[in-house]
Amino acid sequence: MAQKTSAPPHDVTIREVGPRDGLQAEAPLPVEARVAIIEALVGAGVRQIEAVAFVSPRAVPSMAGAAEVLQALERVPGVTYWALVPNLKGAELALEAGVDGLSLTVSASETYSQKNVHMSVEESATEAGRIAELAAGRVPVDAVVSFAFGSPYEGDFEPATVAALGRRLAEGGATSLTYADTTGMATPRRVTDLLASTGHEVGLHLHETRGTALVSAYAALEAGVNRFDTSIGGLGGSPFAAGAAGNLATEDLVHLLDDLGVATGIDLEALLDVSASVATAIGHPVPSRVAAAGPRWRRAER
Amino acid sequence: MAQKTSAPPHDVTIREVGPRDGLQAEAPLPVEARVAIIEALVGAGVRQIEAVAFVSPRAVPSMAGAAEVLQALERVPGVTYWALVPNLKGAELALEAGVDGLSLTVSASETYSQKNVHMSVEESATEAGRIAELAAGRVPVDAVVSFAFGSPYEGDFEPATVAALGRRLAEGGATSLTYADTTGMATPRRVTDLLASTGHEVGLHLHETRGTALVSAYAALEAGVNRFDTSIGGLGGSPFAAGAAGNLATEDLVHLLDDLGVATGIDLEALLDVSASVATAIGHPVPSRVAAAGPRWRRAER
Repeated sequence: MAQKTSAPPHDVTIREVGPRDGLQAEAPLPVEARVAIIEALVGAGVRQIEAVAFVSPRAVPSMAGAAEVLQALERVPGVTYWALVPNLKGAELALEAGVDGLSLTVSASETYSQKNVHMSVEESATEAGRIAELAAGRVPVDAVVSFAFGSPYEGDFEPATVAALGRRLAEGGATSLTYADTTGMATPRRVTDLLASTGHEVGLHLHETRGTALVSAYAALEAGVNRFDTSIGGLGGSPFAAGAAGNLATEDLVHLLDDLGVATGIDLEALLDVSASVATAIGHPVPSRVAAAGPRWRRAER
Repeated sequence: MAQKTSAPPHDVTIREVGPRDGLQAEAPLPVEARVAIIEALVGAGVRQIEAVAFVSPRAVPSMAGAAEVLQALERVPGVTYWALVPNLKGAELALEAGVDGLSLTVSASETYSQKNVHMSVEESATEAGRIAELAAGRVPVDAVVSFAFGSPYEGDFEPATVAALGRRLAEGGATSLTYADTTGMATPRRVTDLLASTGHEVGLHLHETRGTALVSAYAALEAGVNRFDTSIGGLGGSPFAAGAAGNLATEDLVHLLDDLGVATGIDLEALLDVSASVATAIGHPVPSRVAAAGPRWRRAER
């Protein structure tokens, strides 16, 4: 069972990652369509948004044109527009393009790290330090520890080992840490176990591969976590990791939090409109069940 | 947040309702196929199973042949084979056919009660008392309060009102109570609120319409509930209630409970084999995400 803090959070910060993690596995959308989605999400009340990734357009065609997206955006004051950067070169481009924050990923899985970025975890952590050094005094750097709740390659990791990797990244200059469940292996127990090693002042990034993202978020909330990455419609999942599937849907988490009386600043009805427009843009339904069924207060015809 | 008991349950009783609630919305399967599914579920460790419904074969064609299913079954000692009965006539037939337990439903929603059984809630509760009287001293009677977490017709109900309906059914002779979330309106908050009025010695029957069944089950578990209805594959949902969708999947709950170290007596790998065979029998994939992705300990090819 989750360890409960005496004071569960009264508000939660949601970082919307749909324009990046959500769209990266979809067929490429034009710059204007991506801009429209980002602006609509901000219009619904999103204040933290991973808008783009400065990655190789050959490796991830749907993320091409990151600088163009940032340039075309009407930036809203008070909103932090994040870019994912895979390396120092990407960080340089992102800073040139005027992002508000850099997110970078270091995998807790040695196998995935070698397969995906052709670096050991150690080399990847060192590269993260270089990125943090470049960004220091300019923008915040969020280090995302991927496979934090286990890996389909190696199995489960010791929470202390994963937490030590996070500490190493913070000591290397990351200004915040997010633990990511890349392939849907998080459960309430695994979340509680990791938080016992990391403390609750971390972000969580969860995937619905096995339908455990929302219940894991709830256990984290009970343990005092108040920062979550989510994706509009539940889109997403690494195109490179075995068994990855959609992210925790923004509307599913907001629906739960609204009902609990936890503030997010996001308007659920507006968010559901954005979700519907995203489904139209990508040409297929989104996985979110709240998007499909509507919020619990929606009434039937008698 | 869920109220926590000092002692969360060490084991949980799962009543498998797939052969009834799961299959009722599917195209009819032959008696032998239904028998095979029931026997396979029992083989995986299920000890409580809603095997049949003695309802009108015109209204629910896929439930026709209840007595034949019971007769063809190889009954395993220690297993309770339940039948859903809609009225006194159904209860008589079920008792004649030799069931081990009767489950009956009384709706907390006046609108649904009138639409579905053409009785008021009051009349329906009175009929439940007649069924309990008939069964008294012979088999247990589980009274299921449907729409216990709200209704798409009337909206939310006061927990005290729903709990009072349950008490009335217990006073009328029901030997156990189950609160059902017919259209997926349960959330951790609504579960916690209702349990504050009913106590935790009740069963819960949850639906994944909005993806909130597993998280609601977790909140209930934290509050001390140790009895859940689930459906293999997540099949089911009333064919008559607006906005109804699949049940909480048996494999999804067992997957969560295994990880928490809560015993169910059910073997997850065997259950997943049954789920796959059910998908074959009904001719389409089941909604369970654990069925689709496999359990969290399943490894990828490197």
